This record gives sequence, C-alpha cells and structure tokens, in this order.
Amino acid sequence: MDAVIRIEKALTASLDHADSGGPPLLAAAMRHAVFPRGARIRPRLCLAVAAACGDDNPAASDAAAAAIELMHCASLVHDDLPCFDDADTRRGRPSVHHAFGQPLAVLAGDALIVLAFQAIAWGAARSPARLAALILTVAGATGMPSGIAAGQAWESEPRIDLGQYQRAKTGALFAAATVAGAAAAGAEPEPWRELGERLGEAYQVADDIADVLSGASDLGKPTGRDQALARPNAALTMGIDSAMRHLESLAAAAADSIPPCQGAAALRALTLGEARRLLPKDLSQRAA
Amino acid sequence: MDAVIRIEKALTASLDHADSGGPPLLAAAMRHAVFPRGARIRPRLCLAVAAACGDDNPAASDAAAAAIELMHCASLVHDDLPCFDDADTRRGRPSVHHAFGQPLAVLAGDALIVLAFQAIAWGAARSPARLAALILTVAGATGMPSGIAAGQAWESEPRIDLGQYQRAKTGALFAAATVAGAAAAGAEPEPWRELGERLGEAYQVADDIADVLSGASDLGKPTGRDQALARPNAALTMGIDSAMRHLESLAAAAADSIPPCQGAAALRALTLGEARRLLPKDLSQRAA
Repeated sequence: MDAVIRIEKALTASLDHADSGGPPLLAAAMRHAVFPRGARIRPRLCLAVAAACGDDNPAASDAAAAAIELMHCASLVHDDLPCFDDADTRRGRPSVHHAFGQPLAVLAGDALIVLAFQAIAWGAARSPARLAALILTVAGATGMPSGIAAGQAWESEPRIDLGQYQRAKTGALFAAATVAGAAAAGAEPEPWRELGERLGEAYQVADDIADVLSGASDLGKPTGRDQALARPNAALTMGIDSAMRHLESLAAAAADSIPPCQGAAALRALTLGEARRLLPKDLSQRAA
Repeated sequence: MDAVIRIEKALTASLDHADSGGPPLLAAAMRHAVFPRGARIRPRLCLAVAAACGDDNPAASDAAAAAIELMHCASLVHDDLPCFDDADTRRGRPSVHHAFGQPLAVLAGDALIVLAFQAIAWGAARSPARLAALILTVAGATGMPSGIAAGQAWESEPRIDLGQYQRAKTGALFAAATVAGAAAAGAEPEPWRELGERLGEAYQVADDIADVLSGASDLGKPTGRDQALARPNAALTMGIDSAMRHLESLAAAAADSIPPCQGAAALRALTLGEARRLLPKDLSQRAA
C-alpha cells in the first residue's frame, strides 16, 4: 500500500478512537489539527526507513509513523497559541485556538500527545519487545531534556544554545522518525539516527529560507516572522545562496549515512528527492 | 519500603532524568509542579492495589504510581492556566504559570505527560507483556474520549453530561490508579476498576464539600470557586449533610468492591481510612 494511504489510514483510525463518545468540540479540534494533511514528511520518512529494513510488522510501522505525526501536530497546536507564536493561521486555515478557542487548543495538544502513545501501544501490541523502544524513542523526541518541548522552552531562557535549540525543536522528531521506523521493523535503531538528524537540519535550513523568501500564500502561515521575532535564521545569517549550498550538503550527508540494508538504494534516491521538495517551488527548480 | 518513600523516589528519578542538560527553567517548572508533595492519594492507591496483588515487580508498580501522579500534576498545571481556572496559587504556593509564565506552564504540562509514559516504559521494561496494558490504562485516563482532557473539555460544550464530565475529569485517574496497580503486579486488572471509580466519586464529593466549606488557608487555593464559576457541586445541590452521607456510602461501596486477593483485609481498612482523610479536618472528626 502507498505510504501516504497507510499514514492517513492510521491517523484516521486513531482519531476515530478519540472521537468515540467524548466531548465533540475537542474531537473536532483534534481533527482540525491533523487533517487535511500537510506534507507528512516525518511519517513518510518513518515508513521509508521501515520499508528499507524489511517492514516485517506493518502495524507497528504504521503506528510509529502515526505517533510521530500526531506529536508534530500537537506541537503545532501549542506553538500557535497566543503565549508562543500567536499564529492565527496554519496551512492556510485558522489555527486551532483561532477556530476553537484557547482552552480546546491546549486540550487538543494534550490529547494528541496521549493519542500518540496509545497508537504505539495498539500498533505494537503483537511485538511487545519493540514497544518499549518505540515509546522511549517518541517520548525522547517530544519531552525533556532534548525533545520538542525542551526545544520550545529554550526560547524562555536568558541564554540560548542555538544548536541545542534546533536539535531539540526540529531535529529530534526527524531523528525519532528514522529510529522508530527501524525499531518498528525490528532493526538495530541507533545507526538510523544520523539520517534523521541530517534531514532535520536540512528541513530547518529550508524552513529558514522559506521564512525569508516566501509569500503567505505559499506556506499558509505568516512569513518573515523569524526576523520580526528576532529568532535565529540561517538564511538571514549566511544569505540565501550559502543556505542553499548548506542544505545540499546536508542532504548528501543524510544519503551517505544510510546503513547497509536491503532498500538502501531506493532510500538514498528518496532522501535526495525529499530534500529538494523541502524548498519553495521556484528555488527547487533552481536547485534541480 | 514505605509507599510514600517509594513514590517520592520514583518521581525524583523521573524528574532527574528530565533535568539532565535541557533548558533549566522548564526543568524547574516541572519540579515546581510535582514537589513538594500533595496528598499523593492516587499513587498511594496504585501501590496499595499492587501490594494487595502481590507486588511481584516493584519497579513496574513504582513506575505506574509515578506515571499516575505525573499525569495528575500535568493536569493541575494546565487547569490553572488563565484560559481555564486562572488560579494564581496551588497548594499554598504560586501556580506554575504564575511563577514561570504561561509558555513554560504549557510546556511543563506537555513534558510531564510525556515523562509519565517514559516512566512506565523504563519501569516495566522487564515485563514487556505488562507494558502495553499500563500505557493504555494511563493513556485512557488522560486523553480522549474519557480521560482528564476529555473531562476538562466538557466545560467547553454547550451541553454537559454531568456524570460523564466527572467520571472523565476526576474518576478516570482514580480508576487508572487501581487498574494500573493490578496490571503492574500481573493481576487481572479490570476487576479493580470499580474500587477506583467509587473512590474517585468519593473524592469528587469531598472536594465539593471542601469547596463550599473551607477557607483558602486549608486547601492552598481559592475556594468557593464552583459557585463563582457556576460549576456543578454536589454539596451545593444536596446540602452538606446529605453529601457527607453520600461520601460514606461511596467509601463503603469501594471497600465492598475489592476483589478476592491476599491483601484484601488490609486494603479494605486503608480504603475506609482514606475516604475519611478526604474530608476537611473538622468534618472528618464529625464523621469519625
């Protein structure tokens, strides 16, 4: 089955469970956060690694991919809150708190985090030996001391370690995607961390370039915000052309890090293609 | 080892992990949410059930108890936020958002939820067959459709089912405490649900009585808020004396529900004693 179909099916099954008799507005807020789909880049990466490792337990791989995406969506809901980015729009639609109010946005984020762990426990139930690794991989990428919440919290510190900030806020979930994909397929997970880390860095650089260059219609959210909010941005610091070259070298390093496995060649091609897809359309033609 | 010592040790170990190199203010906000301890009624209940069931895997029981308490603390941090209860104090000290600001309070709640699942995965690592049950028990009590987040979200609905609201907001975590205690000890978990549910109802009634009667110095938070916020309150609806009798009958039903097990008699005495401890001091003397 096509990866995107598997991901949407797994996410829909999770959301359907959450939406079985509870308060309807919270269920709607959670769906609003997850659908319609964005690029689903992290869960596609997770399934690509699982496939490269043999994907002998598709239910576990699907659960890992869904959990990674649910965590990503939860982090967006909370990041958009007025006390953080105060973003009224996301993917061209109202942000969750703008559509449902702050209380339901806080709760939607909370419930999506919980749902991610439920998804793993359901999906990996038949592979209990893989369950702990999947839970710890996803938890490590979202909590303290080095997951998404930690990354976001560096913005509240008087002194910020830029590398630690970006590794936690963006890199951690990319690394979890590759590590969890391998763990779900029963492969040794740690050799897969570098692929996720390098792609996470590439994504961050691409996001920085997009923040500087794109119009609001392309990203579906207000742009140029890094400069407005005095946030670190590689494309502002080193210039667009240097940032593009940096992104290409990160993509090459990612492809080179792929451990020996049956699907290595296909995954290498996919990795380089994905890195190109990260860029805004006009730039990706320039890079092609 | 004494249950309270085990609980504090397990919570400290979890918080120490969270506080290992991440952003210091978020780590401090998480500690502020968990220490100094409150009554720890839910984790004590969890360990009491585990003990009654033989407690053959203390690491798993401690992890389950810690996870239950971490979830409780996370829910308090988010409940206190300005968009919900807007409480400046908690247990006689500044609430987390009052002490650390809203961004770190949102993130502390998020990170405590994640830490709860991590604690289970670490603690039950040697009993993978019990791990999925523990994850699903704690997740079911905190997410959608019938956990704490669902309970809180009923307050945002135009029509509220009072029973469903209280079962989700308060009862679910008590039920999870007894079910997880049994699961951690390898016992059949579901027969233990009623004990937690009845104690959760008793706790809700005691909280309603305390809200009506107590001064701010006793609970460490502003009281009489239910009336001010037009929230349902059994002691307001049926009167203090009827609410007291209702609480006693719930405690008796809880004690009667205890499944046959090696520690049933001790647990029965503990259950009735705990129900009495729920009341404000002057009322518990009246009930004794």
